Amino acid sequence: MSQNTTVNRRIVLASRPKGAPVAENFRHEESSLPALADGQLLLRTVYLSLDPYMRGRMSDAPSYAPPVALDAVMTGGAVSRVVESKDANFKAGDWVVASSGWQDYATIDAKLVKKLEGAALEHPSLALGVLGMPGFTAFMGLLDIGEPKPGETVVVAAATGPVGSLVGQIAKIKGCKVVGIAGGEEKCRYAVEHFGFDECLDHREAHLDKRLQEACPRGIDVYFENVGGAVFDAVLPLLNTKARVPLCGVVSQYNAQGLPKGEDRLTLLTSTILKKRLRIQGFIIFDDYGHRYPEFAKQMSEWFSADKIKFREQIVQGLENAPESLIGLLEGKNFGKLVIQVGKETD
Amino acid sequence: MSQNTTVNRRIVLASRPKGAPVAENFRHEESSLPALADGQLLLRTVYLSLDPYMRGRMSDAPSYAPPVALDAVMTGGAVSRVVESKDANFKAGDWVVASSGWQDYATIDAKLVKKLEGAALEHPSLALGVLGMPGFTAFMGLLDIGEPKPGETVVVAAATGPVGSLVGQIAKIKGCKVVGIAGGEEKCRYAVEHFGFDECLDHREAHLDKRLQEACPRGIDVYFENVGGAVFDAVLPLLNTKARVPLCGVVSQYNAQGLPKGEDRLTLLTSTILKKRLRIQGFIIFDDYGHRYPEFAKQMSEWFSADKIKFREQIVQGLENAPESLIGLLEGKNFGKLVIQVGKETD
Repeated sequence: MSQNTTVNRRIVLASRPKGAPVAENFRHEESSLPALADGQLLLRTVYLSLDPYMRGRMSDAPSYAPPVALDAVMTGGAVSRVVESKDANFKAGDWVVASSGWQDYATIDAKLVKKLEGAALEHPSLALGVLGMPGFTAFMGLLDIGEPKPGETVVVAAATGPVGSLVGQIAKIKGCKVVGIAGGEEKCRYAVEHFGFDECLDHREAHLDKRLQEACPRGIDVYFENVGGAVFDAVLPLLNTKARVPLCGVVSQYNAQGLPKGEDRLTLLTSTILKKRLRIQGFIIFDDYGHRYPEFAKQMSEWFSADKIKFREQIVQGLENAPESLIGLLEGKNFGKLVIQVGKETD
Repeated sequence: MSQNTTVNRRIVLASRPKGAPVAENFRHEESSLPALADGQLLLRTVYLSLDPYMRGRMSDAPSYAPPVALDAVMTGGAVSRVVESKDANFKAGDWVVASSGWQDYATIDAKLVKKLEGAALEHPSLALGVLGMPGFTAFMGLLDIGEPKPGETVVVAAATGPVGSLVGQIAKIKGCKVVGIAGGEEKCRYAVEHFGFDECLDHREAHLDKRLQEACPRGIDVYFENVGGAVFDAVLPLLNTKARVPLCGVVSQYNAQGLPKGEDRLTLLTSTILKKRLRIQGFIIFDDYGHRYPEFAKQMSEWFSADKIKFREQIVQGLENAPESLIGLLEGKNFGKLVIQVGKETD
């Protein structure tokens, strides 16, 4: 299947998942191209971003963002080209990024659309990775909440993912020791050799807690939390006094149904926050830091041009593969920033 | 029993408590007066402060401060008079505050001793309450971590205690709505009538969660955490997006032996921190804010002189009653700042 100029293929939420999403939670539909009003743009999707937060939008449990309605197009950021513009600031052919969803075409208010610039114009899919939302998440969470100082130890999981890999690289630029955690020996080797982590531990191997303690002989000063679960459990006892924990995701929990049985460790966590004087702070990148995007764009562009930032993408061809790819992402099957190529780059 | 000039009565830690402390964990001893070295002061205790943190020092579990050793004098802040000085900055008769422990007399380095000043000279025991450590704790935790804004809702438990009562009063000065929680109808009425809380809920009555929800129709923006347990459970679902939780104590947990059974809500807490973008931060007042004491002293002294700050003390006569009083404090039996009068104010 590929894009044509008369049909809008789109993927809608057919039902809400119980636990891990399955193919039946999604439905492929076709419609005619949407009509265009003044001030709007018609966009053709080229690259669709897949990200862990999408799992949350599939549920109707209270969260920081409203859920995707049943039968509505799945939400998602995408890099697109302008097909038609009814706004003076854009013209056909422009490269843009917007939250335009899992579909070939979208109409959207020009005010909600950002033009690609700088390095992203030469490599447009990066506007969904290191030069976009995941990069911004890593940058602000690590620097504004984590406040890493030279010589401190920074730990981050999903170390080859777009957020984790950038957290590690920025922490190295700031003079920290960086220990990553990832799933599988290949990813771990990659984190060290390609992204420059000092060490990277395979969470699939036994005794993560002991191996993490050995890798962090001076304890942990910043834990950038994006996975939760067993990694958090291993990190908590190793956090130093006054450690900072920016928290942007708990992907290991997104498919959980109910709470695990056993001891209630809520008071263990609050007691630890007190005894170690921890700062744990959740953030949603554009809600909390939208006004500081230019600061990120400028600094990241400088680092990128100076070849200080590496990235890894996994580009899957075809909108029809988005559901299966998201299901795999939530199981850690991706390796690098997962992007669906929905259409050609050229018009 | 009362002080005399040749015997030092002191209370030592006889054994470590399992759960709630009991009388047998303490032992009364008598010794001769300690000898004085250059640069030291000999202090005579007048008022001894009793505070929830003392429970932690009785245990040898890892914490933010080393435990009291077995057979050592119980730790504690006290207001004292200088009996003899081998330091040029102090003279006999001076009023001072220092961490001199549960005893009649102490020798201590002059560097570790602070002279009383301002209003505390007229009412020395206040140097252990609103004008001392508890006041400083309320001031910094609320203002620096809680960052209350006019119109926001602030919740604090132990509302008639020295920290809680001051958190509420400072939050009122800052234009907030203040809801307190306390044990018993009398304390609740006092919090409203005397300390100016907008409402105060009795945690001994049923359905705290529903009553708190009714008292906070716009949710909770700042929860000053000093008790934990059931109060935290009731607060958590009501916290607003971007709420702040300064955490200075979890007194409801200090006597706990092991974790409660049931569901493990650790991931519930981390997920809530993410979804609501909470900031939860523990602090130990002098370790984290010691350098900002003058700022507190100046502001509190101004408020106090302007009659904007009320206080309530419960003064118990006699060092021998300190163990029983601390045991009661941990059960919420005190009403106001608990102070032991160990000796006369006059020489």
